[in-house]
Amino acid sequence: MNYRMISYILGWILVFEALFMAVPIITAVIYAEPVVWTYVACAGICAATGGIQIAKKPKKTSLYAREGEVIVALSWITLALFGALPLWISGEIPSFVNALFETASGFTTTGASILSDVEALSMASRIWRSFTHWVGGMGVLVFIMAFLPLSGAQNMHIMKAESPGPSVSKLVPRVKTTALLLYSIYIVLTLAEFVLLLFGGLSIYESLNISFSTAGTGGFAIYNSGMSGFSPYVQIVVIVFMLLCAVNFGCFFLLMAGRIKEAFTTEVRTFLAIVACSSVIIAFNTCNMYDSFGDAFRNSLFTVSSIISTTGFATVDFNQWPELSRTLVVMLTFIGACAGSTGGGFKISRLIILVKSVGKALQNMVHPHQVKKIKIDKQPIEHDVVRAVNVYMVCYLLVFLGSLLAVSCFENNDLVTNFTAVLTAMNNVGPGLELVGPMENFNFFSNPSKLVLIFDMIAGRLELFPMLLLFTPATWKK
Amino acid sequence: MNYRMISYILGWILVFEALFMAVPIITAVIYAEPVVWTYVACAGICAATGGIQIAKKPKKTSLYAREGEVIVALSWITLALFGALPLWISGEIPSFVNALFETASGFTTTGASILSDVEALSMASRIWRSFTHWVGGMGVLVFIMAFLPLSGAQNMHIMKAESPGPSVSKLVPRVKTTALLLYSIYIVLTLAEFVLLLFGGLSIYESLNISFSTAGTGGFAIYNSGMSGFSPYVQIVVIVFMLLCAVNFGCFFLLMAGRIKEAFTTEVRTFLAIVACSSVIIAFNTCNMYDSFGDAFRNSLFTVSSIISTTGFATVDFNQWPELSRTLVVMLTFIGACAGSTGGGFKISRLIILVKSVGKALQNMVHPHQVKKIKIDKQPIEHDVVRAVNVYMVCYLLVFLGSLLAVSCFENNDLVTNFTAVLTAMNNVGPGLELVGPMENFNFFSNPSKLVLIFDMIAGRLELFPMLLLFTPATWKK
Repeated sequence: MNYRMISYILGWILVFEALFMAVPIITAVIYAEPVVWTYVACAGICAATGGIQIAKKPKKTSLYAREGEVIVALSWITLALFGALPLWISGEIPSFVNALFETASGFTTTGASILSDVEALSMASRIWRSFTHWVGGMGVLVFIMAFLPLSGAQNMHIMKAESPGPSVSKLVPRVKTTALLLYSIYIVLTLAEFVLLLFGGLSIYESLNISFSTAGTGGFAIYNSGMSGFSPYVQIVVIVFMLLCAVNFGCFFLLMAGRIKEAFTTEVRTFLAIVACSSVIIAFNTCNMYDSFGDAFRNSLFTVSSIISTTGFATVDFNQWPELSRTLVVMLTFIGACAGSTGGGFKISRLIILVKSVGKALQNMVHPHQVKKIKIDKQPIEHDVVRAVNVYMVCYLLVFLGSLLAVSCFENNDLVTNFTAVLTAMNNVGPGLELVGPMENFNFFSNPSKLVLIFDMIAGRLELFPMLLLFTPATWKK
Repeated sequence: MNYRMISYILGWILVFEALFMAVPIITAVIYAEPVVWTYVACAGICAATGGIQIAKKPKKTSLYAREGEVIVALSWITLALFGALPLWISGEIPSFVNALFETASGFTTTGASILSDVEALSMASRIWRSFTHWVGGMGVLVFIMAFLPLSGAQNMHIMKAESPGPSVSKLVPRVKTTALLLYSIYIVLTLAEFVLLLFGGLSIYESLNISFSTAGTGGFAIYNSGMSGFSPYVQIVVIVFMLLCAVNFGCFFLLMAGRIKEAFTTEVRTFLAIVACSSVIIAFNTCNMYDSFGDAFRNSLFTVSSIISTTGFATVDFNQWPELSRTLVVMLTFIGACAGSTGGGFKISRLIILVKSVGKALQNMVHPHQVKKIKIDKQPIEHDVVRAVNVYMVCYLLVFLGSLLAVSCFENNDLVTNFTAVLTAMNNVGPGLELVGPMENFNFFSNPSKLVLIFDMIAGRLELFPMLLLFTPATWKK
């Protein structure tokens, strides 16, 4: 283990976290909130701790793959721990575990909250929550790596560990350029939504919060009514951007390059098909609960977009829907967004690979001597990728079942509550069903359960392996 | 497709089904029940239909692997369809779909029933239900193959398709001898339980029913009170035999050969460890619901053995247990018994292979250049087996999710009811939670849902591929 290097990168994480706190500090100054001093102090703590760690650049900067994974896991834990400080020190969230839950939920873009009255928070803390979504959405390490003077090999290890999806696709040969390109697309999307929301009559503060939260596919609300209080126009803008941010960002790159046909990959088409089918089914299933079919369809499309993009905003209490719609919501929670987007979940590309591998297995039983590789978008999928997806699936199930059992030990909630709480945490969605439905919150869980869910949120955001390796003894042996 | 050969083997299936009906016929004669004529007529229908099909032996007896799978799937569907006739014609179960549900549940050793008052059935029909469990437990095709004058290659294709578990282990080189050995062990176990139950003061009729049902890990009850009305001695005998029948029958062969250490394979040890741990946890979790800890432990051990062996007998209404215990019951439903037993479920050996493959993947991330195979009981597991288990897992999940969605379309039951109904059907357990809890029945489902569940029961018993291939167009192409 290159401990010096790990400490060095964690130091940079803290320095950047101090910079991120400029957002709530400026907000607090504008609205003359006394919480400004807490944020200044916490930024100071982050900057000082990080400053000591980065004071001396390590001589040996090379990293093994496992060190990349460990760095990523520790970075996200560090972000959440230090990000929780202002909420806790200011007394706005008196329990540290609750504050940690809130920031872990923020950075992992889950959006599950322990707050019953979010409007009681200061303006600064509300934008801090939304901003953690934005930072977590694209991944902070990829960003930092673009600035640090390190070689490409180390960057690749870290980018691999932080990027969602079964395989990392570099848009351009250089990792740093890829990172900058992705961030540019991200910023453009955020700005576009911000402007469109302003046109909808929202204040700058509201627009900024919602744009941060949507772009990162997070889901923290700034009002107790969630998104239900906003006009249909605003809701439609949010739908569009939730969907855009759940699409592989590589597609936008292809679109900009004029390669329109290539941009609509199998994954994107499958994603859009799932959204369309689910929305129509749910609209028909719920139409007698709303004034008109149009209303039902808007709410259905909003919910489907929100869940599959793993954002978690809500315009209606889908926990009250008929069982078919509820079951669909649970399945969408599991599926999640496209690989290479800011969304979480199992990822549509993995699902496609699994379905195709089953199809191939059945074909092989019919024609035992046929040897064909699975193809997606005319590209053959290597056995290693299929194997990795299979291993991921199994890991996912084991972590899910283990977490469900652990939460069941600490809580006597109904099965649907525990099941969807773990599912929604692991997939970074936010709301579940029953006691963790969209109109409820996670405060009633005991601290041990909250820690399990925090683990699940971070493990889910990092696609399991960084967090699992952190707890594998072999990682720490020479 | 060798249609002549398929028809020939299905003919034999029907001839054997006619013979199986001797059991209810004799019972009806002894108890002087008028239903005897229905059974005689149905046996006649089976014998006549089958007789025509076997009248002429096909010239070409060779079978491809896919034909083996198709034969197995069609055989089980045939068994269930013709087995339902007496229940339907006698008017004891007036709806044919219900009668089909009952016999599909019987032959697949599920034990889920649509009857609210099983005591209203004739003695003949009750023993017919129990006997279908016994026939289905070991698999009827393996039995028939031992008698048909076919070569070993065809037998192997069919045995592979019908045997549970990730790989077929032949106890002795010849398939037919293996089949006879397995059946001998099966008969000895059934007789042993029968005698022990007689000692417990049960009647011959009761002992026979329970022995058939336990040996096949079925779970149909003969009284409305399930197993709760029997003495602790009877319950303990049933616990022992449920566990014995959930163990790989190869272990008994090794025990008889004096290879005691080898008989306790990793799978058997894991199985016993899961039973012990779950029983203790549930006993502590439920002890305030019963008179004493001893009572709680007996009920807990009974339920755990019943669920993990996929039998489905109940002494208590575990649907009323606290959530931790209920969650454990759901997980045990999924896990199921050992491979090569009469039990269903995902199988413990598959779970072991998956857990080890995750461990290996994590090790590989730490030491990327290490190439090691997974080992179980010091035997390396070939990549093909690991891949097959992965494919099985994915198939399992897809069939499960598809069925859940289908049932949700037809029913507006709560999520736990639909979820556990599909789970318990696919794993051939029997009871689930909520509306399909151990004190309830499946009658309230609509016919389309019942057909989905029938598909799941047969697909689950045959480990998916035979039923999936039946619906794969490529299977039927030249």
